[in-house]
Amino acid sequence: MPQESHLTHVDETGAARMVDVSAKAVSDRRATAAGRVRTTVEVVDLLRRDGLPKGDALAVARLAGIMGAKRTPDLIPLCHPIGLHGVKIELDLTADTVEITAVTKTADRTGVEMEALTAVATAGLAMIDMIKAVDPAASLENIRVLRKEGGKTGDWVRPEERP
Amino acid sequence: MPQESHLTHVDETGAARMVDVSAKAVSDRRATAAGRVRTTVEVVDLLRRDGLPKGDALAVARLAGIMGAKRTPDLIPLCHPIGLHGVKIELDLTADTVEITAVTKTADRTGVEMEALTAVATAGLAMIDMIKAVDPAASLENIRVLRKEGGKTGDWVRPEERP
Amino acid sequence: MPQESHLTHVDETGAARMVDVSAKAVSDRRATAAGRVRTTVEVVDLLRRDGLPKGDALAVARLAGIMGAKRTPDLIPLCHPIGLHGVKIELDLTADTVEITAVTKTADRTGVEMEALTAVATAGLAMIDMIKAVDPAASLENIRVLRKEGGKTGDWVRPEERP
Amino acid sequence: MPQESHLTHVDETGAARMVDVSAKAVSDRRATAAGRVRTTVEVVDLLRRDGLPKGDALAVARLAGIMGAKRTPDLIPLCHPIGLHGVKIELDLTADTVEITAVTKTADRTGVEMEALTAVATAGLAMIDMIKAVDPAASLENIRVLRKEGGKTGDWVRPEERP
Amino acid sequence: MPQESHLTHVDETGAARMVDVSAKAVSDRRATAAGRVRTTVEVVDLLRRDGLPKGDALAVARLAGIMGAKRTPDLIPLCHPIGLHGVKIELDLTADTVEITAVTKTADRTGVEMEALTAVATAGLAMIDMIKAVDPAASLENIRVLRKEGGKTGDWVRPEERP
Amino acid sequence: MPQESHLTHVDETGAARMVDVSAKAVSDRRATAAGRVRTTVEVVDLLRRDGLPKGDALAVARLAGIMGAKRTPDLIPLCHPIGLHGVKIELDLTADTVEITAVTKTADRTGVEMEALTAVATAGLAMIDMIKAVDPAASLENIRVLRKEGGKTGDWVRPEERP
Repeated sequence: MPQESHLTHVDETGAARMVDVSAKAVSDRRATAAGRVRTTVEVVDLLRRDGLPKGDALAVARLAGIMGAKRTPDLIPLCHPIGLHGVKIELDLTADTVEITAVTKTADRTGVEMEALTAVATAGLAMIDMIKAVDPAASLENIRVLRKEGGKTGDWVRPEERP
Repeated sequence: MPQESHLTHVDETGAARMVDVSAKAVSDRRATAAGRVRTTVEVVDLLRRDGLPKGDALAVARLAGIMGAKRTPDLIPLCHPIGLHGVKIELDLTADTVEITAVTKTADRTGVEMEALTAVATAGLAMIDMIKAVDPAASLENIRVLRKEGGKTGDWVRPEERP
Repeated sequence: MPQESHLTHVDETGAARMVDVSAKAVSDRRATAAGRVRTTVEVVDLLRRDGLPKGDALAVARLAGIMGAKRTPDLIPLCHPIGLHGVKIELDLTADTVEITAVTKTADRTGVEMEALTAVATAGLAMIDMIKAVDPAASLENIRVLRKEGGKTGDWVRPEERP
Repeated sequence: MPQESHLTHVDETGAARMVDVSAKAVSDRRATAAGRVRTTVEVVDLLRRDGLPKGDALAVARLAGIMGAKRTPDLIPLCHPIGLHGVKIELDLTADTVEITAVTKTADRTGVEMEALTAVATAGLAMIDMIKAVDPAASLENIRVLRKEGGKTGDWVRPEERP
Repeated sequence: MPQESHLTHVDETGAARMVDVSAKAVSDRRATAAGRVRTTVEVVDLLRRDGLPKGDALAVARLAGIMGAKRTPDLIPLCHPIGLHGVKIELDLTADTVEITAVTKTADRTGVEMEALTAVATAGLAMIDMIKAVDPAASLENIRVLRKEGGKTGDWVRPEERP
Repeated sequence: MPQESHLTHVDETGAARMVDVSAKAVSDRRATAAGRVRTTVEVVDLLRRDGLPKGDALAVARLAGIMGAKRTPDLIPLCHPIGLHGVKIELDLTADTVEITAVTKTADRTGVEMEALTAVATAGLAMIDMIKAVDPAASLENIRVLRKEGGKTGDWVRPEERP
């Protein structure tokens, strides 16, 4: 993916704008983002024990992520409202973190990496909301794009994810 | 702030719920959260040069943060819709990061730390959206509550912020 | 319409997801749903008398239904945000009910039966809000899809609507 | 609860308005509403089997109901935006239905029965969305207020719920 | 109403903020705003003829105004989300204009003149949407506050409305 | 652009509807709208002085306009939710006014003049919110479409803008 040397979302005078993408082709695009909620061993243990019927704690974060992805153009001022055609959130528990991965898909005119990042952030915030009474120091870490596929600029893989 | 030993947002069967706060007192409450966009020296330089009339890049992140704080109950499934009475976002440029701080205030029945965290996350996501064409590897780091004042549970200061 | 034997909105582990529809064709799709507000003869009489200039009671329900259809992806966690290309709400007064029918149209990648059902439900809720001071026992009944046309799975007509 | 003999949401000319409640007292108010998704024995069986770790099907409906309650003033044109201080959704599986109950609480100037009804309707719509590929004929039935407590008009219990 | 000599919504460095109002008293506040859609004699005639049963054209504008008032904090970046306790929209047809007046009421910590102005603007935009196929040159004129009552700064009446 | 002689958004009985556009072609469409905030020489001077680093006052209006354009289908009851592919807001200061111009672009099935008008109105309302403490009499004037390009009905230029 060739990179720009200026901020595309502001014009030459510095004024913000929503860039015109009407001439870009409708094509399959896909993005993967990840992040992590850092908490305590005690909290991860509570989340594991919650893995029972009606154990909604992880579901709350998963659904917040999916619904957050849909709200991306409402939240990010210069993002285009686009068709969002698929969202999947994966949550993995380690000893003291919840690892969050989001995959977003579209067949539209712009990429969906902001949707993937927003999904991770919203899932992480919802998780912190669930656990903050137990661990008020929980933090949300390392929200980043892992890879981006499709579209005119082509594929991009995060350096540390390259083979 | 005494801490809970269970997840307050799920009942004893594990079912999610919005906890009843109608009996809590209306009182002044305040939260401070922080986070950071990690990017490149080149991008921070572009953001600094943008410090001209009509230089909207930092304003986009500040406003996204303020508006994001207002959307917290829409985004976080079990958050209460409350009166939000003040929001301030501060952005500081270092060599290769944008440091984000958000302060939220309310005179209502629940704390506003989720609003502060959401403000930081939304400001950070909007900043990444601004710079992603130049730095597709930009990441959002270390979103956390610094302090929380007011309300029944009393004040809480993040351990590393304590004197 | 061939029917599935598992829940498509959860994966094999039971985790919720927004199913990827990016490979589905853009095609004309249409859905009709119906429902009913059950109230009293007195209320239906008030609604009829309101059929004067500036008689907004039925208009409130019609517009709530149209606007509700547009909010479907905000309300239904796993629904796709799609182009919604036409909505029509019909309200018919009987002796003690308001019969609601909604027709939704799209030329997009997924069906619009959830939009039709949401339109009926929102119109019905708005109607109940209008009349609840007079009839606190008003209820919303029998919200269902009558028919569904277009898309890969083909047409479906509710059994009791078949000739 | 004394009942009105005219539609309070329209003025004497029939024009819709949001009634002025600024003079009403802030007081504890509570509402309970219920409804039912009617489907097939096969679907209820799928939902029961989903009662495993990561079984999100019921959680989707519960969260849709809670978040739907918060969106009530966005959906119902003449509803007041109020503080919503607690929401609880209960889902019970019978042989071929999912029974939905919602309890809403506030300490504000108007009742919360529309929030309870909207919670039931949104939970039911989300449930239908989950199962519609298996049972396209699933319907949403009998959405109604069971009881209403607090506020100037006093308590109201649905006739068939009275002792 | 004593007037400020600086912009209260930006701090001394020019950064936007949502001003902290948590120390302001809850009190009755009220605002009246007005505006006008300028169109043609032909269009006003169509609107008058629409004054029949099911004549929804004016109802669309009235409801858009009421719902727009509720969306004010979503639309105006630095507006506080407050309790909105009453909204009334009046539409009057002259020979070639639709005169719009909105009255908003609250018992909360900030004034509601932005809500009244947003109600007028949204009602006017919805009216233009209704008539634009007939009169593409219709315009929205003279949206302004007529008067503002209550709150610490006291009452203010627009100069040309003073006796 | 041939003009209609009836209101297209209501059917023959006067009932509001969202007109079916699913058969309209996807094509490039563009609209330009303008308007003006009328205020005092003192306020325009404050806005000019704010043209410093972190001078967010004009940015607030620009971003409100862009985000407002995206909210058009939420605000205007019978507007279609469409892909919005570009938005640009220009603000020009004269002696005692802020002149607002908005250009909107789409490659979708309906025109974007309502999006352009909503962008102008929202930018203007946000500007009034910024300055209302200094000039409570500020007004929003002359919101109108300047031109409209593309789509089946062809181009339209406001009479006073024609050469």
